[in-house]
Amino acid sequence: MFSLIKHFQKQDPVRPSFWEVVLVYPGFHAICLHRVAHYLWINNLRLMSRIIAHIARHITGVEIHPAAKIGKNLFIDHGMGIVIGETTIIGNNVTLFHQVTLGGSGNPNGANRKRHPTIEDNVIIGAGAKVLGNITIGHNAKIAPNSVVTFDVSSNDVIIPSPSAVKLKVV
Amino acid sequence: MFSLIKHFQKQDPVRPSFWEVVLVYPGFHAICLHRVAHYLWINNLRLMSRIIAHIARHITGVEIHPAAKIGKNLFIDHGMGIVIGETTIIGNNVTLFHQVTLGGSGNPNGANRKRHPTIEDNVIIGAGAKVLGNITIGHNAKIAPNSVVTFDVSSNDVIIPSPSAVKLKVV
Amino acid sequence: MFSLIKHFQKQDPVRPSFWEVVLVYPGFHAICLHRVAHYLWINNLRLMSRIIAHIARHITGVEIHPAAKIGKNLFIDHGMGIVIGETTIIGNNVTLFHQVTLGGSGNPNGANRKRHPTIEDNVIIGAGAKVLGNITIGHNAKIAPNSVVTFDVSSNDVIIPSPSAVKLKVV
Repeated sequence: MFSLIKHFQKQDPVRPSFWEVVLVYPGFHAICLHRVAHYLWINNLRLMSRIIAHIARHITGVEIHPAAKIGKNLFIDHGMGIVIGETTIIGNNVTLFHQVTLGGSGNPNGANRKRHPTIEDNVIIGAGAKVLGNITIGHNAKIAPNSVVTFDVSSNDVIIPSPSAVKLKVV
Repeated sequence: MFSLIKHFQKQDPVRPSFWEVVLVYPGFHAICLHRVAHYLWINNLRLMSRIIAHIARHITGVEIHPAAKIGKNLFIDHGMGIVIGETTIIGNNVTLFHQVTLGGSGNPNGANRKRHPTIEDNVIIGAGAKVLGNITIGHNAKIAPNSVVTFDVSSNDVIIPSPSAVKLKVV
Repeated sequence: MFSLIKHFQKQDPVRPSFWEVVLVYPGFHAICLHRVAHYLWINNLRLMSRIIAHIARHITGVEIHPAAKIGKNLFIDHGMGIVIGETTIIGNNVTLFHQVTLGGSGNPNGANRKRHPTIEDNVIIGAGAKVLGNITIGHNAKIAPNSVVTFDVSSNDVIIPSPSAVKLKVV
């Protein structure tokens, strides 16, 4: 826990004090509460774990499914609006900004399959980016704000958001 | 109410139990509270209806103007950040993901006109999409995440945020 | 305070009453609480000011760093998900919609520098737009919803989400 607080202090250019991270960093609170929810989940206390995750969402604005696997030193900045799905796997030293979605492809028939992304070490995902489906984001990759990513991303790649909406006719 | 719970259970690939939907689904809570607010609104208890909608926003992260008309079996997934404007009309079996906006065009002189979208049956709108103005999204249309839509969309159309994200190699 | 309430009444096409603005407008609450937090900040009560800002974020969904400088008649509509960074400067009569970010460039080494935008008078920024880095948005400029802006914008310019996003310095 102390190393996570230190990581937050190092990552945020605001240079928060120890007590600032403990008291007013929703990203830090979200990760702590997820550890509780995840512990309950792997011990088959499913409903209780989802209630903890639900309370955590209300307190922090960050929604993490209790089953999601999260590595060391995840830095969540601001956090409001983040959604992390059930079968997501996050490596070490990952940075997520607010409104990031690590989600499914929206297919209601996807139960019991891995349908959320795998995020490898040192990845940075900008605010508002949607990373969707059972894809892998390779280590050190950077995803720019508001990107929509539905394909595998190689290590060290940079993804920037697309041009504006276009109309596509279904034949 | 029971049919709405069943609809949530069917739509979410997490396959939630009955009690999970009742206890920890903000989208379900938002629709229930909107029904109360809407009832107050059509009985001319305007301020009271807006207070209920305001409390609902705080509890669920979903902001629905009490005047908005919502059909059967609306599925709101995750929900945080959704905004649904005053003159919005939503049909049956619509799916909205988090951060969707059904909003106006930002013109402060639009009072007393229909200035929000009409969403027909079976439409799916992805996370972060902004659907703006007095436009119609035809039945079965799909709007991809983070799209900005300011024009009518025909039935069965698919709107994607342009050639999807562009890939850029760092040299 | 009264002039700000009047400004909200004029800007929102819903045409809210005085008491509606006071009771159910999170954007109004956020600005009032920021004034308290900013007062504490400039009097060197740093931790206390951040706690007020943190509580304000929980109540309103709007996250404003206590150090941010905000001019007269800021209109925040809906507000959920807004993030305004430490060194942001906002002029007069600016309009921000929900999910707008006035943020840094994500570089953890930016401490003690101006690393957030300057927004001049009468600017309108649409829902979900990310305005990032020490850039200036000139007066009367309009930024469309979901845009990503990482460059200076001239007065009266309109930025739409697309080639805008692609205006990166790619070698």
